[in-house]
Amino acid sequence: MEKTRLSVNLERLKKYIDASANIGTIPGNGVSRLALSKEDKEMRLIFEDWMKEAGLKVRVDDFGNMIGRREGKENKSPVVLGSHLDTQPNGGRYDGILGVLSALEVVNSLNDSNIETLRPIEIVNFTNEEGARFEPPMLGSGGTSECLDKQYVYNQKDTEGRRFEEELEEIGYKGIPANRIKNIFSFIELHIEQGPILESEGKSIGAVNGIQGMAWLEVKVTGESDHAGTTPINHRRDALVATSKMIVGIEEIGRKTNAKTTVGRLTMRPNVANCIPEEVIFSVDIRHDSNTKKVESIRMITELLNKLAVEQNVSINIEPLWDIDATIFNPYLVDLIKNTAEELEYEVMDIISGAGHDAKYINSIGPTAMIFVPSVNGKSHHESELTHDKDIEKGANTLLNTVYQLSMMENEII
Amino acid sequence: MEKTRLSVNLERLKKYIDASANIGTIPGNGVSRLALSKEDKEMRLIFEDWMKEAGLKVRVDDFGNMIGRREGKENKSPVVLGSHLDTQPNGGRYDGILGVLSALEVVNSLNDSNIETLRPIEIVNFTNEEGARFEPPMLGSGGTSECLDKQYVYNQKDTEGRRFEEELEEIGYKGIPANRIKNIFSFIELHIEQGPILESEGKSIGAVNGIQGMAWLEVKVTGESDHAGTTPINHRRDALVATSKMIVGIEEIGRKTNAKTTVGRLTMRPNVANCIPEEVIFSVDIRHDSNTKKVESIRMITELLNKLAVEQNVSINIEPLWDIDATIFNPYLVDLIKNTAEELEYEVMDIISGAGHDAKYINSIGPTAMIFVPSVNGKSHHESELTHDKDIEKGANTLLNTVYQLSMMENEII
Repeated sequence: MEKTRLSVNLERLKKYIDASANIGTIPGNGVSRLALSKEDKEMRLIFEDWMKEAGLKVRVDDFGNMIGRREGKENKSPVVLGSHLDTQPNGGRYDGILGVLSALEVVNSLNDSNIETLRPIEIVNFTNEEGARFEPPMLGSGGTSECLDKQYVYNQKDTEGRRFEEELEEIGYKGIPANRIKNIFSFIELHIEQGPILESEGKSIGAVNGIQGMAWLEVKVTGESDHAGTTPINHRRDALVATSKMIVGIEEIGRKTNAKTTVGRLTMRPNVANCIPEEVIFSVDIRHDSNTKKVESIRMITELLNKLAVEQNVSINIEPLWDIDATIFNPYLVDLIKNTAEELEYEVMDIISGAGHDAKYINSIGPTAMIFVPSVNGKSHHESELTHDKDIEKGANTLLNTVYQLSMMENEII
Repeated sequence: MEKTRLSVNLERLKKYIDASANIGTIPGNGVSRLALSKEDKEMRLIFEDWMKEAGLKVRVDDFGNMIGRREGKENKSPVVLGSHLDTQPNGGRYDGILGVLSALEVVNSLNDSNIETLRPIEIVNFTNEEGARFEPPMLGSGGTSECLDKQYVYNQKDTEGRRFEEELEEIGYKGIPANRIKNIFSFIELHIEQGPILESEGKSIGAVNGIQGMAWLEVKVTGESDHAGTTPINHRRDALVATSKMIVGIEEIGRKTNAKTTVGRLTMRPNVANCIPEEVIFSVDIRHDSNTKKVESIRMITELLNKLAVEQNVSINIEPLWDIDATIFNPYLVDLIKNTAEELEYEVMDIISGAGHDAKYINSIGPTAMIFVPSVNGKSHHESELTHDKDIEKGANTLLNTVYQLSMMENEII
């Protein structure tokens, strides 16, 4: 395996990031660039120019995923890297964007050093990763990997009723199935962590072992509304007191099973200061690295909620909204990333992704892994999202040297 | 004291109640008759006719309170009774209405028996007791008793910006200060309990000892919003988990101090399933018969909330919205009601009102007490509000016989 130590040009990469942040800028240094919007189109046209300037051959697949290809010495299966250029409505400058523009910078750096790789390299910008305009997230990678049905993806609508397929045509980015990435040798996605772990552990690089399994429940607790002034506590069936005990218990289960459990959404009726709450509806978000433990956490939460409902004399309805198993990335790629970062003398650690990423779907069509860089204060999906320059550089260098090694490999990854 | 046992005519009283329920009828047997609305005007005109048919001399004071006077043998201070004819937007047929129409029925019954009382009797319909159109509640009784400033009352606006005074003029019920009830010998208000106590204790009559003290707090809990999938539980500052522990603790304090504590209103931000809650704002309604214990409950709740905020690493702001002391009714009147009900062989018990009533303000200008009758399932402010006929009859008979005794008394109540 080649052990050449390559370096990206941080200034050039930062210019790309700044130029991207000028498209859909919002106050506070953030970016609002919803998928297939006019800002997305503008970004795509510029990114296409950048890819062509880097000597890449650009193609677009039937989900609007943009692919730039750098040929290798041999027509072997390609080393693929990338992420997404769309953002949340109040997004930051790095989420997704860093992975795409670092991929471009990898190509530029190889060009600078006149390196011809054995395998072709393909960089990708996936469509609608955020799911902020068209739900669910990751429609581009889900479609191209055939994890999601093509008509399902095409029929997704935004809140104004516009179909994904029509908007793809509208901005001129509906390509053809033949252009999809395929027979991939490997896929590597560099991404910001969006959590506080790397920062709090003092590490610059996370070698991402996989993506947590995730489940959502919707819980409806029904008690009885009565006058707050006239109903003694022992005559009450207070849906909010019952719910509060449930929320405390859900957090305790999270601590016990090491799951991430969150009640993020809660509404209640009648929601009047002097009325005892009759109905509370709340969400439970449950995530775990281990599918067994995720299932166990859901079972414990469901049991607890039913038990508390009986104790509190309220009725309860628990509806599972969705349940996705954990993703395990290719161990060889994870090790390669870790070793590469160590050789570059960067502080590296194993980490699990709490959020979903395009790599989740691409993992189903070829060996896949991710590289995380720290998020300041763990913030993302917010204009205050920040990754320090030194970490951007370390992340991009880890990506560059990992991709370089992969691009020189004769044999497929087992 | 006179011990004649008098009886109301239940059929006539029910006809009045049915006729009232036809003005502002809503589905499910309810009534929507907001203060100073066209429905209120229609009700007032009919009530005026009924009072005149009963031989009463009708007058209207400067707050729109309607008073019907039956002269006594002597021009002594009057025995006053009444309540209100306005309702909540989704109100029932009895709340307030029962007290006014039973007062009318008391007069009719005295007329039937050709009884001439020593003292004059005055029946009253107070304006805007509910506070549903013009906040706060009890503007009519508060104004006439001078507990509330006249200009303050006049300047209250409904949600469409219409002033109380103008709406009073608009419906033709702005009378003059000279018409207020004054130098009252006693005031008795018959009302539905609006709670479950009489029903659950199997009693028909509550001799109301007073009205609970009441305080409202508004609490803001601020944590930190983060991604639910990427932030480990021990890195979180979850405003809702902190709030849930507070709500559980507030209920425990209520049970301990025998206060009625209610968190009835709660909103949160960002309120998204996969975001850790950043901010929760909730109300705390605290009521207690004893002012000392009310103050003690507020202190305990405030201490607990501050302690939990530190433990949960969230910030907290506790704002007192209002705080009203408990009302203690005239013990002589309370005993008279109790004895009268017992002599009528009705099941009677002492009770404290959890809700506010016109009697609260009238208590400040003369000896006052209330009679409660049971609410089926404790329901009120709802179209399902119901009091059984037998209890209506017992309540009205207790009112009639109490008023009759009072109206025959030579000397003022000490």
